[in-house]
Amino acid sequence: MNKQEAIDKLLNGEMKLYQVDREFSPEEATNIRREFLEKKYSIDLVNISNYTLDMEKASKRNIENSIGVLQLPMGIAGPLKINGQYCKREVFVPLATSEGALVASINRGASTITASGGVNTIVTSDFMTRAPVIKTNSASDALLIKQWFVDNFTDLKELAESTTSHGKLLKIDPILIVGSYVYPRFVYSTGDSMGMNMVTIATEKILDKLAQESDAKHIALSGNVCVDKKPAAINVVEGRGKSVVADILIPKEIVNKKLKTTAEAIVEVNITKNLIGSAAAGSMAFNAHYANMVAAIFLATGQDAAHVVEGSLGITTAENRDGDLYFSVNLPDLPIATVGGGTSLEVANEGLNILGVAGSGKAREFAEIVAGTVLAGELSLIGALAAGHLARAHQELGRG
Amino acid sequence: MNKQEAIDKLLNGEMKLYQVDREFSPEEATNIRREFLEKKYSIDLVNISNYTLDMEKASKRNIENSIGVLQLPMGIAGPLKINGQYCKREVFVPLATSEGALVASINRGASTITASGGVNTIVTSDFMTRAPVIKTNSASDALLIKQWFVDNFTDLKELAESTTSHGKLLKIDPILIVGSYVYPRFVYSTGDSMGMNMVTIATEKILDKLAQESDAKHIALSGNVCVDKKPAAINVVEGRGKSVVADILIPKEIVNKKLKTTAEAIVEVNITKNLIGSAAAGSMAFNAHYANMVAAIFLATGQDAAHVVEGSLGITTAENRDGDLYFSVNLPDLPIATVGGGTSLEVANEGLNILGVAGSGKAREFAEIVAGTVLAGELSLIGALAAGHLARAHQELGRG
Amino acid sequence: MNKQEAIDKLLNGEMKLYQVDREFSPEEATNIRREFLEKKYSIDLVNISNYTLDMEKASKRNIENSIGVLQLPMGIAGPLKINGQYCKREVFVPLATSEGALVASINRGASTITASGGVNTIVTSDFMTRAPVIKTNSASDALLIKQWFVDNFTDLKELAESTTSHGKLLKIDPILIVGSYVYPRFVYSTGDSMGMNMVTIATEKILDKLAQESDAKHIALSGNVCVDKKPAAINVVEGRGKSVVADILIPKEIVNKKLKTTAEAIVEVNITKNLIGSAAAGSMAFNAHYANMVAAIFLATGQDAAHVVEGSLGITTAENRDGDLYFSVNLPDLPIATVGGGTSLEVANEGLNILGVAGSGKAREFAEIVAGTVLAGELSLIGALAAGHLARAHQELGRG
Amino acid sequence: MNKQEAIDKLLNGEMKLYQVDREFSPEEATNIRREFLEKKYSIDLVNISNYTLDMEKASKRNIENSIGVLQLPMGIAGPLKINGQYCKREVFVPLATSEGALVASINRGASTITASGGVNTIVTSDFMTRAPVIKTNSASDALLIKQWFVDNFTDLKELAESTTSHGKLLKIDPILIVGSYVYPRFVYSTGDSMGMNMVTIATEKILDKLAQESDAKHIALSGNVCVDKKPAAINVVEGRGKSVVADILIPKEIVNKKLKTTAEAIVEVNITKNLIGSAAAGSMAFNAHYANMVAAIFLATGQDAAHVVEGSLGITTAENRDGDLYFSVNLPDLPIATVGGGTSLEVANEGLNILGVAGSGKAREFAEIVAGTVLAGELSLIGALAAGHLARAHQELGRG
Repeated sequence: MNKQEAIDKLLNGEMKLYQVDREFSPEEATNIRREFLEKKYSIDLVNISNYTLDMEKASKRNIENSIGVLQLPMGIAGPLKINGQYCKREVFVPLATSEGALVASINRGASTITASGGVNTIVTSDFMTRAPVIKTNSASDALLIKQWFVDNFTDLKELAESTTSHGKLLKIDPILIVGSYVYPRFVYSTGDSMGMNMVTIATEKILDKLAQESDAKHIALSGNVCVDKKPAAINVVEGRGKSVVADILIPKEIVNKKLKTTAEAIVEVNITKNLIGSAAAGSMAFNAHYANMVAAIFLATGQDAAHVVEGSLGITTAENRDGDLYFSVNLPDLPIATVGGGTSLEVANEGLNILGVAGSGKAREFAEIVAGTVLAGELSLIGALAAGHLARAHQELGRG
Repeated sequence: MNKQEAIDKLLNGEMKLYQVDREFSPEEATNIRREFLEKKYSIDLVNISNYTLDMEKASKRNIENSIGVLQLPMGIAGPLKINGQYCKREVFVPLATSEGALVASINRGASTITASGGVNTIVTSDFMTRAPVIKTNSASDALLIKQWFVDNFTDLKELAESTTSHGKLLKIDPILIVGSYVYPRFVYSTGDSMGMNMVTIATEKILDKLAQESDAKHIALSGNVCVDKKPAAINVVEGRGKSVVADILIPKEIVNKKLKTTAEAIVEVNITKNLIGSAAAGSMAFNAHYANMVAAIFLATGQDAAHVVEGSLGITTAENRDGDLYFSVNLPDLPIATVGGGTSLEVANEGLNILGVAGSGKAREFAEIVAGTVLAGELSLIGALAAGHLARAHQELGRG
Repeated sequence: MNKQEAIDKLLNGEMKLYQVDREFSPEEATNIRREFLEKKYSIDLVNISNYTLDMEKASKRNIENSIGVLQLPMGIAGPLKINGQYCKREVFVPLATSEGALVASINRGASTITASGGVNTIVTSDFMTRAPVIKTNSASDALLIKQWFVDNFTDLKELAESTTSHGKLLKIDPILIVGSYVYPRFVYSTGDSMGMNMVTIATEKILDKLAQESDAKHIALSGNVCVDKKPAAINVVEGRGKSVVADILIPKEIVNKKLKTTAEAIVEVNITKNLIGSAAAGSMAFNAHYANMVAAIFLATGQDAAHVVEGSLGITTAENRDGDLYFSVNLPDLPIATVGGGTSLEVANEGLNILGVAGSGKAREFAEIVAGTVLAGELSLIGALAAGHLARAHQELGRG
Repeated sequence: MNKQEAIDKLLNGEMKLYQVDREFSPEEATNIRREFLEKKYSIDLVNISNYTLDMEKASKRNIENSIGVLQLPMGIAGPLKINGQYCKREVFVPLATSEGALVASINRGASTITASGGVNTIVTSDFMTRAPVIKTNSASDALLIKQWFVDNFTDLKELAESTTSHGKLLKIDPILIVGSYVYPRFVYSTGDSMGMNMVTIATEKILDKLAQESDAKHIALSGNVCVDKKPAAINVVEGRGKSVVADILIPKEIVNKKLKTTAEAIVEVNITKNLIGSAAAGSMAFNAHYANMVAAIFLATGQDAAHVVEGSLGITTAENRDGDLYFSVNLPDLPIATVGGGTSLEVANEGLNILGVAGSGKAREFAEIVAGTVLAGELSLIGALAAGHLARAHQELGRG
């Protein structure tokens, strides 16, 4: 079959999209599917066709039915000085976004931070979770299964770890019982990979063992207590992925000069918007826009965009300390990686290289950079809202 | 200044990133900043440098401190047959992701849907919101401000609409009072743009009027009752962006043949994972992975990746109807656009063109496609989990 | 049958508890059941037997299988000065509780309030809700049912109101669609009764009409979107029962003298405990202990103790205004009554009489008193926590 | 001073309510305050005056500014057969309520349960918590404080336990950090008392130690991460008080005969109301009315009515097992006691005696009874809703 024949078969429905891969190389198949769309809809997909990434490699790991690549603009913000446990230096942060002013705003925050001596960051926990749902006959049977997990922890740990070179089963906690169902939350360290695949495979091994030793049946490998890619209180309370805190004390003069406002005004915005407003709206996120920064840096570094949901959680605090501003962001749930998944894509790798965190042994350092970047953007927006407020107050005073 | 001089100034800190734009064209500035990074870190950013999008245009609307573009693989799933109010045809859905198997899984769902005659979709509401926080002296003053909004609605509507050619102020509801603070939620129709900028400008106009007529001060233009880019119950209850429902009745044989499972098993997974599991975990999303589909289609069509947070919300239902499977996804909060923002980027436009929804008058049709795509992916994953379950059950039965 | 025979039959299982009522008067049946327990368990229930309430009346409306009454201590707090829309006077608040120090603490708050000129109160909304769950074949059918409710509102209102002399159907909003299910939230004004029975009967009438005119079936008269006796964001956002705000400005000297602390310290406790702490714990209530005050006054006035769940919701705010303390409590969800239900019991009536709000036309006045009482207790506890803080700070300063 | 003089002084404001106790015995003071109200408002409080409880004892532990007692009707439901770990017998459950039909409904559930062989109950955890909020200078200082708690656990445990004869410090977990604030959740076993006072005193001792060894300051003894008397996800996930599950398998014929419905119909009500309806409303409780049963049995046994808020949380499950009904209630958060607090009141003690659980060593047995009672009431209501549905379906079938 030649290329044109394949396109014709796609057009008349004789061939399915994925069947193209059986006859052609990944690059050719990519072109065939794209040209099929162009012909079918009489459209031009020239920009999608422009790529340098290795489509053969991507087809094995990252994409099916490929037609080319998305182009999303990348900018940088910095220098951003970070005083972390793992990251102790200035960085320039790559950000992929189409929201005008976002990079500029983060850059303004970075400038404020760096002028103040840098943002402090700490990683308070680091693990990945998987929680299947298991069915028994009754709550008392469910309790036996829970006890089985507790009693056999050492064996199960060994079993789980036989499936992975980097993952370690840290604990099974909590093990929730709801009627006849059991939801054990398996908690693993996963090195520098995000770890969802790793923990899924390891957990499946444990469930196979359970199937051999009991009548309990696992209904689904994920029972939504993990909780992956959904906003959830359990992740806020227990943490998931990296839990990171970033904070800074900004001298009064810098608040005035860089943010055109005062600590007092920023504290008021934080209380009324991020705390009271979120509470009144039944929100699970007590911040202004973590999701913006998380999305932009996640995309630029090959993280999973769907994990932005988890990265949006967290609480911003602000304190007026005699005119100086203490400001913190708290990110309990950042699933990130410096190896594996999307990080192996060429541009993602370049993004990680800009930050100096590509490859093994870098995930926590990267987590600290994400948190510092979130603080930069959060500070900048809250500052802008507060400055708007002051500006109006001045106008009003001037009215009289 | 020539290019090399600019790079040197960046390297020795004499020039800031954004200052490059003053001296050079957007394309040149992009190159300079990228080459600065390459030199500074001794890295190669060749992939980031490869782009066809119009950087001059992007620099005005979508990005600052540009260094090039992200490349993220795009695939397609389909044909996906949609029986909507606005979309009544088969589509091929462009998806940008780095998560292996996601496109294949959505494709499997699309195949199941199309074989069953198509997915039904309805848009149940369509509006964008902005809710500032306003400060008064007391709750009784707050009540006066609330009343002022109610009494002057017609005038305020006219005022707001003077700032926009497409936006309409539909209502101000609810107007929450918390102590001395007022949070009026301004609800606008915004045509085919996502509308955040539009409603922000229109709302600011109203607040200016308020400032003239009262002593109440607005503390922040957004008081987190909007709620933008954060998971929030008010958005679930009231809706935000497009609220869309997609559902389908899948004949028993197709469930068996395409998904290798039964309606009964799918219903059990849905109840124990999406409903009970989410409830036990304190989750705000009662589904398996809406975020995955929303993220992939959002990226491929120029939507804001941070809005994936809102798109992750919603409830999946499944019913066993005499062996046939009724299945629905419910998306109360999809902020999307077919004009403006990121949709004007070249690749995004191509993505929308693949779907036939670029430009004006297409946003609700696009919303229906998003919902249909979410159903395809949700069905496929739940089906796979259920099939795993059945497979094991068969093995277990065979053990004896 | 004589009394002893009845007791014997209960003891040997020949008679059921409720069958006693067929042969004996309510008072006699009460004694027989109690004596049965005394004999069966060889215990003495002399305190339960001591009552003055009219058991005949109570047996018709409030209790089945009666054995006597609970005695719970009642105390009073006051005078509490209230400057409301409906209540403009000093009151002494009856409180039934077994928690030592609660009445004293509320009394301290009342004293602080009254010394400051009184607590201001406003009722921001007043209605009761019922939301059945209705099943259709599909989301598009669900949409038709939603439209049917909208189109027939006037007729349905008339129908609903034909079942009650005091209830008025105000709106049906929101009408949620989830897959094939519809959850219309019927919103009624209910005069001075709590209204759950009233709105249930009126809503059932509407559902009968629906059954005549469509194939949609209502699955349950309450679909948990009401939301009755459960904590729920929809009640926080939309309100339920009475929504009331109470606030006060307390002069600096009174904060110091009465509460032994400062506005600054109280603000810090409120932010870190009621706002940040609640957010970190995934709590739906952003206050210290509304439930304590609500429970004590509810019990003393014949309200439903299970409604304390709803009364526990709400946000406390505190502001430091140049040393003076602005303090507010916000209660979005207070289901209360001054007629009907438990308010007709003798002691409840006496409790309402102490407050001067027994009978018709008094429910909003009573709501304001509840809110004022909640503020008194909340202020007192937050003040005590803040004072503890200061005390320690003083000790620590003294250490050096 | 004689009685009449005291009343006069109260009337003209020369004496405060609590000052009466200095001059008179508790009984006399009770009468004086009540007569003051009678005179002031020209009302009759004869029912409040009727009590047998020992007011002297109550005045020391349970009430201030006493005026008499509340009378609330008590009924009983049973026999209720319980097959628990601690309770293995039939009980008659005392219930105090003013909601007509509640006792009858619980009784119907109890009858269904007992006919089915009894309800199974298990206590899955048992502890009480206190979580203060501590302030440091920064997140890294906060981390040091967290580490201090971890490193000194053994010493702190000894210290805490020196304040109590029954309490044991089990763990400090989680220790949340939010910016510069630390929220350590101290988890204690508390024997048969509810334990809030016990854990408060023990925790204060630990905080005193912290104050000696660091500059960190505790802002409030409770930082709302406990979480006491407020609905909170952390309590759902981690448990608080007693966590109890009750379940039962009810044969098909008994479902039909006693509940006039089918397992299928009950499952449908449970899914659409308790799971989907609650999810759609942003509710934290996935049940029909746990609060009703919890309130009635709490009041009848001297528990704290404000704890009904916590007892309202939990998930109901229902399964159709070939026509038989599996049904469970899950109560993660039941703060209860059989000694101390309100349980020492005369009537409460009689209530506990009816159940055979007064005094030491009985709290878990009592927890099982509460859970069994909740299941009885939940089953009865869900059954009634389902039967209503079937009744209508029958009518509709008959229409044709």
